[in-house]
Formats: sequence, C-alpha cells, structure tokens
Amino acid sequence: MKYQKIPEATIRRLSRYSRCLEEMEESGEEVVSSAQLASRCMVNAAQVRKDLAYFGEFGIRGVGYHVKNLLNDIKRILGSNKEWRMAVIGVGNLGSALLSYKDFLKQNYKIVASFDIDPPKVIGRVSEKLGKPVEIFHVNRLKEIAKERKIEIGLITTPPSEAQSVADLLVEAGVRGILNFAPTQIVVPEGFVVKDVFFTTILDNLAYLLSNN
Amino acid sequence: MKYQKIPEATIRRLSRYSRCLEEMEESGEEVVSSAQLASRCMVNAAQVRKDLAYFGEFGIRGVGYHVKNLLNDIKRILGSNKEWRMAVIGVGNLGSALLSYKDFLKQNYKIVASFDIDPPKVIGRVSEKLGKPVEIFHVNRLKEIAKERKIEIGLITTPPSEAQSVADLLVEAGVRGILNFAPTQIVVPEGFVVKDVFFTTILDNLAYLLSNN
Repeated sequence: MKYQKIPEATIRRLSRYSRCLEEMEESGEEVVSSAQLASRCMVNAAQVRKDLAYFGEFGIRGVGYHVKNLLNDIKRILGSNKEWRMAVIGVGNLGSALLSYKDFLKQNYKIVASFDIDPPKVIGRVSEKLGKPVEIFHVNRLKEIAKERKIEIGLITTPPSEAQSVADLLVEAGVRGILNFAPTQIVVPEGFVVKDVFFTTILDNLAYLLSNN
Repeated sequence: MKYQKIPEATIRRLSRYSRCLEEMEESGEEVVSSAQLASRCMVNAAQVRKDLAYFGEFGIRGVGYHVKNLLNDIKRILGSNKEWRMAVIGVGNLGSALLSYKDFLKQNYKIVASFDIDPPKVIGRVSEKLGKPVEIFHVNRLKEIAKERKIEIGLITTPPSEAQSVADLLVEAGVRGILNFAPTQIVVPEGFVVKDVFFTTILDNLAYLLSNN
C-alpha cells in the first residue's frame, strides 16, 4: 500500500469516506462499491475510484470493498486509528464549545486539559457532556502540563493578539500539532504543523460561490 | 479581469491575501510586491504570482501592487465587498460562540437573527460583544424571519440529527448559502451551496501530517 504522496484534497476526502464508512458499519453494511460510497459521500464516483486506488489491493473486483477493512485502512493512513491527546487554550465561547464537542470523543480526539489566563476560570473545571470533566489550568502551567499529559495537539482559541505567544509555548512544550482558530497567521519551526480554521475564510469561499453561481 | 474559472485553492488563498492586505492597509503600507505578500502570508512566492496573475493588469512592473486596489479587486472577486446577512440556527455552545465571533463583524458578515427550539432560549436575546444584540426566534419562524430580514447565509449549529431538516427550511426560505457545522452530510437542491466545517475532518488532516512528517 502506498503511504506517501497522497494529495491534500485526497486526504480531505479520505476523512469524508471514513465518516461515511463509519455510518455504514454502524448500520451493519459489510460491502460497498465505489459507486455506492460516492453517492453516500456526495462525491463524484470517478473521484472515489481514483482516491481509493491508493488502497486498490483491498477491493474485490466486481464486488467492492469490505466496509470494515477499508475503514481501518483509511484510518491507518490518516493516523486517526490512534488516540490523539489535545488541549484547548482559551476557554471563551469557542473554547467551551470545543470542550463539549461530541464528535471529537467519537473520533479518538481527546481533550485532556484546557488553559486560560482568567483566574475565575482557572480554578474551575469544564464539564464535558460525554466523558470526564476537563480541568482548566493557568496558561503559565502549559509547558508542564503538556509534558505531563502527553499532549500532542493544541487548539488555540485565544484572541488573535495572544495566538503567537501561545503557539510559542506549545512549541517549547513539544506539542507538534496546532489547530489555530484565532484569525491570525502564526509561525512555528519546521517539524511542527499548523492548520488554520478561519470561519471568515470559509465564508469568503461561500460568498464567492454564491456570487458566481 | 477574468472572473471565471478560478480554482478553489486559489479562492482560499485569495481570502488569505485579503486578510494580509487588510493588515498592511491598517498599518499604512501602500505598495506591496508579490514576494512581500508571499512572505507575509506564508505562501510560496511563485504561487502568489500565479494567483495574482488573475489580476495581472493591476500590478506595476518592477514595483508591485497598490495595497488598496489589490484588496478591493480581491474582495470584489470573492464577493466579500458587500454585506452578507446571516442567521445562526442552534444556539448551543458553538452557536453562541459564532454569535460573538468578532472577526465576522470586521469582515462584512453580519448575523441578523438566530433560532433555537428550546423555549427558555427562544424568549431571549444574545448579547453581541460588538454591535447590537441578536434576537433568538423559534425555529418554526425561520422561513418568515429569513425572508423578512433578507437572510442569505445560514450557519447550522444544531445536533447532526436536526441538520437536514433545518437545511430544508433554509432552502424553502430561499437562503442560498449554508455553512454546516453539524458533523453530517446535508443535501440541498441545485443553486444552493453548502460548505461543511467539520472540526474532526480538519483534525484528521492534521493527524495525517503529524503521522507522516
């Protein structure tokens, strides 16, 4: 199986296939053709076949793919078959929303600590609807706690003005992955990975499609 | 100027350039070369030149681009030079976070109403940190209010089980754009546009990069 050189757009679709396959597995479906998967995921069938060519050996000619096997393969490729330990930095509205985001728990993404600078927040715990409550620490304990709890991904939900200094702390603590919700560009050294989630960027994209459709 | 056939990845980068150019305009910079813009936006310089080739006529050879003109052109292309009227459906944690998301107001994206099914919420108003408080209506008034307030984009932040029925209501009300935060695929007729914002999909992408770096 080829693990390398998968284009980013394919990776995004693999995640989508993974979600659809999970739903299929839950409803007891065992085998799926690329055409069925395409229709379920609302993706072009040729595109699905092209993407799944990376896993070609696992399909059964004329039948399709074993749902469970394909799901496992995709998760292995994505790295989403293991548990990822995460921290939320900035327990405002968005941070709180992420702390109770049910889909994370379902998908092996586990928030194990959160951080803020606001003393009334810092003494507390955020209750998590599923699972255990998450503790809120002061940001000046980020490095210590990140190491102690083996945090691998930091979700930055601070105001934009604080995002870079939080990213620097995460880098110092050896947290290699950052999901940046603060609408500003942050810089990290090589070997660290930042993904931006800028709602206005996504809206710009939607606005473009609405204006040109 | 070519308005058509701009690839989606370019559109995403245009939005990023737009953000960088705004910061430059705010700090009084008047002219920018493609190399400077590239460095500021942390994009490959060749990529910036390729993207900006869509606006080639507006650059000045050997000098670069007028910040203000380029920003206006990009905003016109994206459709983000006009105000977009939006509604949030589902005033839970995430919905509340979006209702107070400051970057929307800065960028011409205006939330003019919100909806829920929970009676204690429905009688209230959400205070918006900048601007006016946003009223919360019962979802069964969605169609009426959407037309009255000329809503063009709906942000779905309901549980996944409710997302499709909310999308159906938006379609009935003629709301052409949907930003879907509920982690499930929704279907809309032709002429309507859905953009998904699935945090776990973005995390899958990050997990892949962390596993393969």
